[in-house]
Amino acid sequence: MPPPLTPALPAMPLKIAVAQINPTLGDLPANTNKILAAVEEARQFGAHVLVTPELALCGCPPEDLLLRPDFLATCDHALNSLAEKIEVFGDITLIVGHPATRDGACYNAASVLRPGSPPAVYQKMLLSEELNEYRYFSPGNAPLVVTIGGVACGIVIGADIDRETPARYARAAGAELLLVLAASPYHIGKPSERFRNLASRARENDLPAIYVNLVGGQDEFVFDGGSLAVDRSGELAARLPQFQEIQGSEISLAGWGERDANPNIVSRWGSLRSPQPTNSLSSNLCLEEEVWQALTLGIRDYVEKNRFPGALLGFSGGIDSALVLALAVDALGKERVRTVIMPSPYTSQMSLDDARAMTEALGTRHDEIGIEPVMRTFASLLAPHFSGLPADTSEENIQARARGMILMALSNKSGELVLNAGNKSEMAVGYCTLYGDMVGGLAVLTDIPKTMVYRLARYRNRREPGNAPIPENIINRPPSAELKPGQTDQDSLPPYEILDAIIKGYMEENKSATELINDGLSKEDVTKAIRLFHLAEYKRRQAPVGILVTRRGFGKNWRYPITNRWGYP
Amino acid sequence: MPPPLTPALPAMPLKIAVAQINPTLGDLPANTNKILAAVEEARQFGAHVLVTPELALCGCPPEDLLLRPDFLATCDHALNSLAEKIEVFGDITLIVGHPATRDGACYNAASVLRPGSPPAVYQKMLLSEELNEYRYFSPGNAPLVVTIGGVACGIVIGADIDRETPARYARAAGAELLLVLAASPYHIGKPSERFRNLASRARENDLPAIYVNLVGGQDEFVFDGGSLAVDRSGELAARLPQFQEIQGSEISLAGWGERDANPNIVSRWGSLRSPQPTNSLSSNLCLEEEVWQALTLGIRDYVEKNRFPGALLGFSGGIDSALVLALAVDALGKERVRTVIMPSPYTSQMSLDDARAMTEALGTRHDEIGIEPVMRTFASLLAPHFSGLPADTSEENIQARARGMILMALSNKSGELVLNAGNKSEMAVGYCTLYGDMVGGLAVLTDIPKTMVYRLARYRNRREPGNAPIPENIINRPPSAELKPGQTDQDSLPPYEILDAIIKGYMEENKSATELINDGLSKEDVTKAIRLFHLAEYKRRQAPVGILVTRRGFGKNWRYPITNRWGYP
Repeated sequence: MPPPLTPALPAMPLKIAVAQINPTLGDLPANTNKILAAVEEARQFGAHVLVTPELALCGCPPEDLLLRPDFLATCDHALNSLAEKIEVFGDITLIVGHPATRDGACYNAASVLRPGSPPAVYQKMLLSEELNEYRYFSPGNAPLVVTIGGVACGIVIGADIDRETPARYARAAGAELLLVLAASPYHIGKPSERFRNLASRARENDLPAIYVNLVGGQDEFVFDGGSLAVDRSGELAARLPQFQEIQGSEISLAGWGERDANPNIVSRWGSLRSPQPTNSLSSNLCLEEEVWQALTLGIRDYVEKNRFPGALLGFSGGIDSALVLALAVDALGKERVRTVIMPSPYTSQMSLDDARAMTEALGTRHDEIGIEPVMRTFASLLAPHFSGLPADTSEENIQARARGMILMALSNKSGELVLNAGNKSEMAVGYCTLYGDMVGGLAVLTDIPKTMVYRLARYRNRREPGNAPIPENIINRPPSAELKPGQTDQDSLPPYEILDAIIKGYMEENKSATELINDGLSKEDVTKAIRLFHLAEYKRRQAPVGILVTRRGFGKNWRYPITNRWGYP
Repeated sequence: MPPPLTPALPAMPLKIAVAQINPTLGDLPANTNKILAAVEEARQFGAHVLVTPELALCGCPPEDLLLRPDFLATCDHALNSLAEKIEVFGDITLIVGHPATRDGACYNAASVLRPGSPPAVYQKMLLSEELNEYRYFSPGNAPLVVTIGGVACGIVIGADIDRETPARYARAAGAELLLVLAASPYHIGKPSERFRNLASRARENDLPAIYVNLVGGQDEFVFDGGSLAVDRSGELAARLPQFQEIQGSEISLAGWGERDANPNIVSRWGSLRSPQPTNSLSSNLCLEEEVWQALTLGIRDYVEKNRFPGALLGFSGGIDSALVLALAVDALGKERVRTVIMPSPYTSQMSLDDARAMTEALGTRHDEIGIEPVMRTFASLLAPHFSGLPADTSEENIQARARGMILMALSNKSGELVLNAGNKSEMAVGYCTLYGDMVGGLAVLTDIPKTMVYRLARYRNRREPGNAPIPENIINRPPSAELKPGQTDQDSLPPYEILDAIIKGYMEENKSATELINDGLSKEDVTKAIRLFHLAEYKRRQAPVGILVTRRGFGKNWRYPITNRWGYP
């Protein structure tokens, strides 16, 4: 515990505005305007300072754009233009996150822009592994403390709060308050992890702390906002809503210098136009709602930021595509979502009826295009080459691929984004057809195990009991790919409760087969699932980008080799 | 320059055997046997020590398998079994590369195994960015010097020789000779880069050095061998052939202690069963031959290590697929390669004739499956949905996808690997159809620009003038996707000489549009190519794994965002 600070009471409470914004990657002019709008709003209610998230100026993560001098020059130019504007505003400090080059190295930086002073720059010390920052950034090694409204503010960035050092340095340099610019992607459990880290840094240093997180979808990542304030004892003072852009919420520091008078942060967060902030310890969303909002934001931002007119979905009448349809309608509105069912002779009447019922109730456009003519054409083309060979998955794959081709043709003609409905359980064991049901521009459920698919569907129906979007029959019937008569998923796979337990243990937690068997799973199921898991790597390599919601999903940071003889127990 | 060493003359010359081997990733039993076979061979000609490449025990790069305790336990187990065997052999030292855990951290390690002593372990100090080693390994910080046959040998690993420190540490700890275990993937220019680094370390420390490189294909990487010996003045003493596995070549150190008597390494490399080693400064292969061998080794190892019965290729009669066919036949033999041409009404008779001529001359199986029936079926299925809309790339894509479906059906039935023939220029600007001509298990030309496609084709024909595999007509006609009447690539793209210059500058060298225009390229071409380049990112994300031969290709380390508004000049 460092010696207690006895700062002088500032002339008036320090008013801090928080810009929990959703920038678009690479759209520097739009992001600059968004930040300036937040500055303007913050000034209107008398804030001393506006804090943006990490890398808010360019969007996050810029990935290999950071290796380009021309991209970095664009960022410098935008920063300079912000600094000029702030000079004109004259009465507010802006702390903005951006990439910065210095002496040939690139840093994840925060610049303090205020009238009449040259910008002060902080360089992030602890780089994020999740966002692969070691590839791009050099770590900084010096704290930055700036006095704003009479209060010495220590600036740190994102993963800096994951360990002790950066906040300690700031405190040692005289900080009375920590301001954290963050771009922390969502996964289940992440919000409480962030809170714990922030609270630890506050307690260790006897400093209140404010954490401003980015919001928005960017390819596989969803940044969830949920910005935080904790007091010097590490107690939660306020939390902004998750998954919502909030440009100019205010927080005030009062009771300054009277360190025994708790709370030393009086929250008036959300006073402008955000919903009421919560001071519940973790999120006030249940797990399913949190994941639901992550997925809908991920869909919406992928569609909007890439300027698709809308989304298109192959609807089999099964639970996965029904869930994606419900998510897409929540994300985009029913006018911008449409479905097509592509029945084969193996498609049940029940599937057709369920699909019609759901789309009629939702009011979305629904088309039907039978694929039997395609199957017949391919069968006759391939007959000379397949003669004498037994039917196998080759024929099943033709059905899946005929559907993929139709979807892509419709999408090519209309410009609509094809949403893919494959779930994490299927992706893990390769229960999916490359170029067939694996087609699409965005894989909505790629990180949602089948058991969670059911939980999300039931949750969504519960949320509007009188107006449940997903027909109960879709939820209750046994899952089937309907690629041959009477087929169900469980003909080829262990039951999903078991499969999902194996996947979680083996893939997410790196448990060995032996450990899983000791956990009570059957040797047969474990052996089969692990074998399928490794065999499916080549399919995953060609999967569409998908939204991540767990700590370990099939995203860019999934780096298993395809060629590999290990792991076939 | 450190003070000169005056080591005692050893009783006899130190005989060092080099195992330039091709392990299979994850096949620990097979790799162990391969190493033991090399040990046995080395003993037979009286070697004091056998040196393997980096990570030779498990294969390289193991990527995320390194995050698994069960995989690391398998490696430990294999290392222990090697140590037991060496104990029995009784008269040779083995230096083997493997991953090692210690106190919860994982290291890229080299173990010195010899009878009667506990293993000594070196931990790599400088980690490789190219293989993303920071994700897995902690850096070591101590040299290891072991005395073998009276000579103090300093052990370092791979990227350790890229900078000064690790070799200096070894010298300071008394090393009289450097032994380098490496797994350095091939790219154009890499062999001379390695030589320069090794020579610099030798000169700086006044030490001879021996560099043992891995050989073999592993997904996108091809390790090219080309192991090296340099004397203490940095002069090349010997180089093993590239792209060939060599289990027990010998090198002897003589004149030890007489440092003015050059050469202090007398090479008898290749004395067992390898071709004669070269002492030319860089590779003795011309650029085209080097790339040719990289691609054939990449194909062969992907097929063999993944146990495909053979390879299958959609042959359009164009230059790209003709080149892949020639490569595949060189890699696998004509019995294991077959082609299928899938003509549409837009396919010229010339393409059909050229494809037949080439496959007849090569003696490979060639089938023809016309796709017109598929086009008709899709046209009639989609007519109600496309009515009133003009024909566009949607219809062209249907042709490409029909071909993709046929190829995949044939592959699913036979188990043969589909080779993809898309080149780097197409991949860069998205001149290719997702799920169409982009299908396949291995993209052979993904890192070969179109201009290099021509160079390779001409080179291969020159190599056997009387028996040139690629018909001249295929090389000489203007490139066309033949997806509509009279189409040529140059209707949509700048000429390939210009396009490839833009791609090299923008993509590989991160030059800005302005710099490219200042280099003399037209603003129109540059603007168009850069725009297409960024737009194609979503396609590249779903491309098959491909063989890398340049410093900057579309592999796992290609990390551009899809959602991005920057770079549309």
